Amino acid sequence: MQKITILGAGLVGSLLSIFLRKKGFQVEVFEKRADARKATTYPGRSINLALSRRGWSALEKVGIAQKVSEIAIPMYARMIHTLDGKKNQQPYSLHDSTKAIYSISRLELNKLLLNEVENLGVDISFETKCTKIEIESNILGFRNKENEYVKVQPEVCLSADGAFSLLRSELIKLDKVDYTQTYLEHGYKEFHIPEDENRAWKMEKNALHIWPRDSFMLIALPNLDGSFTCTLFLQNKGDISFEKLSNITDGKLFFEKYFSDALELMPDFEDQFLNNPVSSLATMKVFPWHKNNFCLLGDAAHAIVPFYGQGMNCGFEDCDIFDSLITSETQNLTSIFAYFQQLRKPNTDAIAQMALDNFIEMRDLVTDEHFLKLKKLESHIIKNISKTWLSQYEMVTFTSIPYAEALENGKINKLKLEFLLENFGTEVSLEQFNSF
Amino acid sequence: MQKITILGAGLVGSLLSIFLRKKGFQVEVFEKRADARKATTYPGRSINLALSRRGWSALEKVGIAQKVSEIAIPMYARMIHTLDGKKNQQPYSLHDSTKAIYSISRLELNKLLLNEVENLGVDISFETKCTKIEIESNILGFRNKENEYVKVQPEVCLSADGAFSLLRSELIKLDKVDYTQTYLEHGYKEFHIPEDENRAWKMEKNALHIWPRDSFMLIALPNLDGSFTCTLFLQNKGDISFEKLSNITDGKLFFEKYFSDALELMPDFEDQFLNNPVSSLATMKVFPWHKNNFCLLGDAAHAIVPFYGQGMNCGFEDCDIFDSLITSETQNLTSIFAYFQQLRKPNTDAIAQMALDNFIEMRDLVTDEHFLKLKKLESHIIKNISKTWLSQYEMVTFTSIPYAEALENGKINKLKLEFLLENFGTEVSLEQFNSF
Repeated sequence: MQKITILGAGLVGSLLSIFLRKKGFQVEVFEKRADARKATTYPGRSINLALSRRGWSALEKVGIAQKVSEIAIPMYARMIHTLDGKKNQQPYSLHDSTKAIYSISRLELNKLLLNEVENLGVDISFETKCTKIEIESNILGFRNKENEYVKVQPEVCLSADGAFSLLRSELIKLDKVDYTQTYLEHGYKEFHIPEDENRAWKMEKNALHIWPRDSFMLIALPNLDGSFTCTLFLQNKGDISFEKLSNITDGKLFFEKYFSDALELMPDFEDQFLNNPVSSLATMKVFPWHKNNFCLLGDAAHAIVPFYGQGMNCGFEDCDIFDSLITSETQNLTSIFAYFQQLRKPNTDAIAQMALDNFIEMRDLVTDEHFLKLKKLESHIIKNISKTWLSQYEMVTFTSIPYAEALENGKINKLKLEFLLENFGTEVSLEQFNSF
Repeated sequence: MQKITILGAGLVGSLLSIFLRKKGFQVEVFEKRADARKATTYPGRSINLALSRRGWSALEKVGIAQKVSEIAIPMYARMIHTLDGKKNQQPYSLHDSTKAIYSISRLELNKLLLNEVENLGVDISFETKCTKIEIESNILGFRNKENEYVKVQPEVCLSADGAFSLLRSELIKLDKVDYTQTYLEHGYKEFHIPEDENRAWKMEKNALHIWPRDSFMLIALPNLDGSFTCTLFLQNKGDISFEKLSNITDGKLFFEKYFSDALELMPDFEDQFLNNPVSSLATMKVFPWHKNNFCLLGDAAHAIVPFYGQGMNCGFEDCDIFDSLITSETQNLTSIFAYFQQLRKPNTDAIAQMALDNFIEMRDLVTDEHFLKLKKLESHIIKNISKTWLSQYEMVTFTSIPYAEALENGKINKLKLEFLLENFGTEVSLEQFNSF
């Protein structure tokens, strides 16, 4: 069996190691950060994650879904916080109110995965930064913990080194490699709502809270310890923007005006506002993903914005699909790269697009009257007309239907819903439904 | 006055040095290649260039247009070579048949510019490759001819280091920098038609020759020595493609079928076909162009495909506009970066688009009946209805109207021409013309 070199021991790199080790490959992993299991915070990344069907499928396949479920909190609905202080729930599944997406801590999940990796006998070199990749001469150079330079000539190198992947930055220097990175006008800042005196949640635990405010929004996901992690998404520049919130007075006024119920739950708001950084959001696309015996996976191949909660799920699905292409006939892992890319690229492009589109829906449409009518019609159809009708959200979140299909079907659904709503209102009959 | 460090002594870097030296700045230039004046061929780049109005304007401004004109050959028209062996001329200007674009050798033009740079007392370090750029700590690292490492802390660094710019590759690692590189499905291969026994041109000298063949084309530009440089633009893959022309037999059959008159003029076709490489074509866009005291210009900021003959002209216009923003009030050159970018970015985006569009026109539409009718109508309008009517091609090539305006006006022109042609045919009256 070949020896596989994996760059990155984050979520995707770790899960990939588990898949490949279970297939019998020898696996070595290099990670520039310190061992996440010794950390208390996760540097430089959002700590909010929502695990959904595609992620679970991959975890089930390697037999660790049960363990992961012990550190995950189901969220059955969006809890919308309106400007006038009201709350209303929108269930995620129109078919089955027990269906949920699962809030999970990036750090805890990474720790769990790293334990699994090591239990399988995989060697992980932490604090070992890849500083050089020469694709044509097949050389990886690392600077290790002892500040020594280590050279590796990988048989196969899989790069799950994230949105700022070194392999990708080398790949795009090669001939005929297309690449796009596009930053959002919005940045984000994280806040923390601590647990109450009884170590319980101060808001509904089993929901993803959203404060949609047109051009910006606040969201909150529950943590195991009774706290919530909130994220404010706001334009970097403009009339209402991070730039304008340059001091604590303006920051507090802004929260009082738009998120007063959340503000009340943050006793140390001022500290958080002053100390938490504003981070950026970008979509990154590259093609091809592979060259010689090097291949990108996860965010390194397709970094997306977080508004569909699919970044990790898509990365885990990468691992799942990559694994499924390995058969007993596979002599050389590099032989599946082209097919892997061909299968995945249209789908990762599709989720990149849907993630951008969903930002509009989350911050704006969830309170829009027309949008609510469409949702009402869709709910009516599922309850009374067609049990097989699936919303785009459900296809993406609760099935493994390829993303590109979900995008396409979602467009057709939308046309159909608009047609039905305009002609028959929200309570269509079966005959009317079939007239489209 | 500030000391300006310029990366690259190609066409744009050289002309920029001249502009800035003439403004009184101290200028130092670093170039990774050997001195072009010692070379006989230009490594790695197309040797065909067409100088037009924007390029001449910049050269006039620094007083070297006359010198350059001595090594340039006017091309007044497109000479279309049809598949059945016929030829027809389409003049570039519908107003004035003496208007031309000028064929010039990249190497000869670069030599001329380098002489001017050195005559102005500018120090150029050849064979000195920039190997490191640290934008935040303001460090440039070079490997010089003696293989020594030289460190420079520039006061101002202007990077005219081409489509594969090192500064750009560092810039795109920074937060909130958008970037796109998109390769064309077509590649190109150069061929050479030698001069005849009397050292004269075997085809019409004062024309740009085009063999349009729908999805591909051959072009030829005259050289001073009586030869022509031809470029074949062809898809890399597909039914008719470089991939399919894998041996000399297929290559020759292909030329016999599509470019027989050109083939007859190439006695060493087989050698050329086998030895000349297939090169790639890409569009590259980045934003912003500058950070701290570093700024991109020319191809480094906006590499475009060659089909409008505007790459060099656009780069020269960059220099011209950059220079025009420097006033006696300018204490620090970095203070004009933001305004320079704001002025230029919409225009370089526009020429990138028009260059892609013009490929369709060159390879396809010049023989398309509808296109020819539109051209006939446009010609009629200029001759008989409105002397102020300008085609997009003329705006781009014979004026300094900002590219973005040329793109916009070109679209409006097209709508108007389509409307007039559909309603009144190719011989409209003034009244009909004014009815749109």
